Amino acid sequence: MTRPPFKSLLESAWRRTGSMLCVGLDPLAQALPAGLPPTPAGCLEFCRRIVDSVAGLVCAFKPQAAHFGAIGAEAELAALIGYVHARHPDVPVILDAKRGDIGSTAELYAREVFERYGADAATVSPFLGPEGLRPFLAYRDRGVLVLCRTSNPDSVWLQGESDAKGEPAFVRIARTANAWNEAGNVMLVAGATYPADLARIRAAAPEIPFLVPGVGAQGGDIEAVVGAGMRRSGFGLVISASRSVLYASRGADFADAARTAAQTLHGTIAAAYAQLRSAASAQPQKSSLIH
Amino acid sequence: MTRPPFKSLLESAWRRTGSMLCVGLDPLAQALPAGLPPTPAGCLEFCRRIVDSVAGLVCAFKPQAAHFGAIGAEAELAALIGYVHARHPDVPVILDAKRGDIGSTAELYAREVFERYGADAATVSPFLGPEGLRPFLAYRDRGVLVLCRTSNPDSVWLQGESDAKGEPAFVRIARTANAWNEAGNVMLVAGATYPADLARIRAAAPEIPFLVPGVGAQGGDIEAVVGAGMRRSGFGLVISASRSVLYASRGADFADAARTAAQTLHGTIAAAYAQLRSAASAQPQKSSLIH
Repeated sequence: MTRPPFKSLLESAWRRTGSMLCVGLDPLAQALPAGLPPTPAGCLEFCRRIVDSVAGLVCAFKPQAAHFGAIGAEAELAALIGYVHARHPDVPVILDAKRGDIGSTAELYAREVFERYGADAATVSPFLGPEGLRPFLAYRDRGVLVLCRTSNPDSVWLQGESDAKGEPAFVRIARTANAWNEAGNVMLVAGATYPADLARIRAAAPEIPFLVPGVGAQGGDIEAVVGAGMRRSGFGLVISASRSVLYASRGADFADAARTAAQTLHGTIAAAYAQLRSAASAQPQKSSLIH
Repeated sequence: MTRPPFKSLLESAWRRTGSMLCVGLDPLAQALPAGLPPTPAGCLEFCRRIVDSVAGLVCAFKPQAAHFGAIGAEAELAALIGYVHARHPDVPVILDAKRGDIGSTAELYAREVFERYGADAATVSPFLGPEGLRPFLAYRDRGVLVLCRTSNPDSVWLQGESDAKGEPAFVRIARTANAWNEAGNVMLVAGATYPADLARIRAAAPEIPFLVPGVGAQGGDIEAVVGAGMRRSGFGLVISASRSVLYASRGADFADAARTAAQTLHGTIAAAYAQLRSAASAQPQKSSLIH
């Protein structure tokens, strides 16, 4: 089954749903709702039911690889991605694996995430240098989400270190990603917890979509995130929440509770976005939404 | 089966074999010698025969995760590590996975590498900040190999960037790893291709063992590596070669050819080490070998 390019899947999902919410699929066998077995099969069933419940409210799903790898659930991860492709073909799937290596090994990681698992996009680490991104970027129809400024407090340790010219590493990463985006398949990962840095990254990469973790359980401020991160041409954000949606209820109503939580998050994001767009409406830019 | 702590496995392996050579297990299904099927099972059999052939010449084995993940060979990776533990219990196994994340996700990656696969040690990325290393370090009997200065030409892009005080990131990583080494289970990954940087890392972390990729196919200079990286107290290096050993012959004699290649590398490393130790013999430090 041929999938459309990630870039068009994402732009279409934004326009179709009006949503910039992404739901992270982080199943924990020991935390599944009552009635689901604490096994890989239980994790798969849990994720499928979450997916079906919230698919109309999201611009993407983001399964997290460690949640499957720790329990030997690779087959279930592949099945989950296949399930989303089959049942919700318009929703792109981002595999959060944060892989990164060099040369032929990076090629194998790209093959793992894009061919073996069939993800539309994947998170990658730039720590080994930009050449290690090339094998991922070579999949021109897939999204490459480069870690830039992660949501955790001590991400500043390497990512925020300023060079001799006073420029922090995350700005350099953003500039490089922007320069390497010739196929239009690059995104950046920038946490909701640092809106001021999000604005600097947006200045360095005006049109690149951002994956923004850190709302929900990690407490990032949605209005600040939308204000700092949205594109001038519209949308531009994939704002990811996992635990606050997945585990909204541990009862038999977990899928409904997840939908309610997703609806609330989507509503908050959409309201902030509408307000900012209307504030900017003196210069209508609707034409640039279609590109 | 309880394994001894990684630290004692490694120190014992150095003393027992006199070898600082590590053989990387990077099977490529399409490049296996004649007679082995291009399948996960073929990769496992290939690695087992290499392991049995060179085990007496190495201080560690280093399977590389992407080579298994790209072809869905997780079961074979687990079986390979179990095979080394069973047949060559004195040889530590380092899983080269370069995982890295934050908080509960880092815990799951630690569980993947140490519990699911049973590796004695694993490579991890410090890109998200030192807190992400804690869940790995919490396995006090396992080795945590922190990426510091990788062997590829553009590793300088982030790892070599100097801060306002002129200190490159790799020195800061080395200092932090040294400070966090309270359980004695930390190592650093520093490429053979930059001996001058290896010497700076050794100065920042005098007793921490280094995993040194980049000899063999990548062309690092063994004498320069040993001179720059060995510990004053002796040994201190795990010098890794993969392709030049694994694929020394594509014929039926591949295991013998691998042993010959490993013997040559071990001999070169051991000769450089002996020469440097004898040059320093005016101040004998044999007592500090046992610690």
